[in-house]
Amino acid sequence: MSVSDPVAPLALTMGEPAGIGGELALRIWCNQRDSVSPFFIIDDPKRLSKIAHACNLDICIEQIYTTERALEIFDYALPVLPVEIPLETNVQSGLPDPANVRAVIGSIDQAVKLARGGLASAVVTNPIHKGVLKEANFPFISHTDYLAHISGKNNAAQMMIVVDGLRTVPVTVHLPLREVASHLSIDAIVQAGRAARTSLQDDFGIKIPCLAVAAFNPHSGEDGTLGREEIDIITPAANTLRNDGLKVIGPLPADTLFHAEARSQYDAVLCMYHDQALIPAKSLDFYGGVNLTIGLSFVRTSPDHGTAFDLVGTGAARTDSLIAALRLAANIAELRGVHDNGKPT
Amino acid sequence: MSVSDPVAPLALTMGEPAGIGGELALRIWCNQRDSVSPFFIIDDPKRLSKIAHACNLDICIEQIYTTERALEIFDYALPVLPVEIPLETNVQSGLPDPANVRAVIGSIDQAVKLARGGLASAVVTNPIHKGVLKEANFPFISHTDYLAHISGKNNAAQMMIVVDGLRTVPVTVHLPLREVASHLSIDAIVQAGRAARTSLQDDFGIKIPCLAVAAFNPHSGEDGTLGREEIDIITPAANTLRNDGLKVIGPLPADTLFHAEARSQYDAVLCMYHDQALIPAKSLDFYGGVNLTIGLSFVRTSPDHGTAFDLVGTGAARTDSLIAALRLAANIAELRGVHDNGKPT
Repeated sequence: MSVSDPVAPLALTMGEPAGIGGELALRIWCNQRDSVSPFFIIDDPKRLSKIAHACNLDICIEQIYTTERALEIFDYALPVLPVEIPLETNVQSGLPDPANVRAVIGSIDQAVKLARGGLASAVVTNPIHKGVLKEANFPFISHTDYLAHISGKNNAAQMMIVVDGLRTVPVTVHLPLREVASHLSIDAIVQAGRAARTSLQDDFGIKIPCLAVAAFNPHSGEDGTLGREEIDIITPAANTLRNDGLKVIGPLPADTLFHAEARSQYDAVLCMYHDQALIPAKSLDFYGGVNLTIGLSFVRTSPDHGTAFDLVGTGAARTDSLIAALRLAANIAELRGVHDNGKPT
Repeated sequence: MSVSDPVAPLALTMGEPAGIGGELALRIWCNQRDSVSPFFIIDDPKRLSKIAHACNLDICIEQIYTTERALEIFDYALPVLPVEIPLETNVQSGLPDPANVRAVIGSIDQAVKLARGGLASAVVTNPIHKGVLKEANFPFISHTDYLAHISGKNNAAQMMIVVDGLRTVPVTVHLPLREVASHLSIDAIVQAGRAARTSLQDDFGIKIPCLAVAAFNPHSGEDGTLGREEIDIITPAANTLRNDGLKVIGPLPADTLFHAEARSQYDAVLCMYHDQALIPAKSLDFYGGVNLTIGLSFVRTSPDHGTAFDLVGTGAARTDSLIAALRLAANIAELRGVHDNGKPT
């Protein structure tokens, strides 16, 4: 193994057990394990065996007790680290049960602990389901929010969407669009820009990154006649980032930023709202997008799709995004120099 | 000339004389006139001669008095119908003068009159400049609004953005994004949908068109937790259109609508705001987009770029969009069956 290979395996969480995560992990191990770094899944081994059986997958599932073991067996068995909080109910595909939310979150907690302790090189999360988390009174709306909370990084963790040829960072995310304007602030944009810079340098090896900043209003507000956010908030934020020494272009009209020629001019775009970041990313690559959380002390990626209840068991769900998430996590862990004990060298 | 060829030429307006329009028209006539239908420009012949000289273009400019003459001479000379309201000042490139707004609007009025009278097969407009129109107290913000007004079609005229592989119809257009939610209404969406259907049938020859409807909020509002516009406005509007007999899909999350596979499922997308329609269109085809006004009694297209003051005289401005606008106008005129006297057969 070369010096630059991360030695710890990737930790993949269970995700919502009624969803597509387990099935995708099994299919990737069966059909494409040569194309990803070794990973283990934190899940219920019996549950996974049932899925394998139902999906007619020829797979050897081995329960592991140390993450090191995952590296030894990955070639011939899918390593499963049992989730410490057991599933309360028999899982029914497509029917999430609030009683299982503790196990879902437990799987995330275990992965984070292992990554922080150097026993996993990165955390890759399978999709969870917002509705059932809410039903179970779980107080966070997404992985990103929860990971920020348990990392004590409430003000620094950000979503970055990564597809082939484009990286976007939405400054606001899961908000009704009519509320976005009142949530935009110079601080929020500056913080997202700083997190983006750090990630572009540490995670993508870009020494002098260039950030594009998207306008909020059509035509970038046309000098205030189509909205003042560019004048009052976005331009001052872009200037603060410039004063930080960062190379920044914009704010520019969002419809001028995403064609191939424009994309060649920058390394990432700060977007003001969810769909501004996701429309171009998913238009370019609908199946292979990755959600990377930047601003955390450990590496965390996720496929950018949901639990796909309607596809569970049909064999129709595509593995592209989870594969891309596993690969990106491994690449970043390697670039950050997460060796042996998982801690940066 | 075959029966299906429109006999009247296309009318191209002057646009903002300090902008790029005249230069593009001259360059298209010089280098690419074989690839477009005959057109004439409603402009000041002396001004165009100066531009041709400054740009070193080898061009014969001929003043015409009837639009028929354009068809006779187009092969060897650019036909120019003098704008009836003369330019007040010597035009300086890049410096729009409010004193010339009357001539700018006059050129549009002439084109519309000729199209309505059957002496032009369609109106193609060169870019105007919102700022100088406002300075001159012109009460309309865009071509679309003005054309709707003079056509008495205030409630029916809509913008459709047409690129290779995608047509989008923004329900709201030149508004600050924070104000869009309060301008969305069932009526506005239904009206846009009906105009889109008529255009898809009459202008694109699609007998049974399928419309996709984009959601306003991220994840289509997630059952109201991320915004209620889908529940209160967009779904009822989509259902009204369905009750009209139209094939409608959605509302669907906007980030799922624009990759190639999704685009193969519909003929046009109703978008809720400017950038939702323009980001995907300009990402797919930044240089060749066309702005088509649907819901008018005559055909009107326009390049989807602005006056490009910074590019005037540099030779760097691309003709793709104006060429696409000329071609689309001719195609639609032919499909609508605008013959001989310009009136539908």
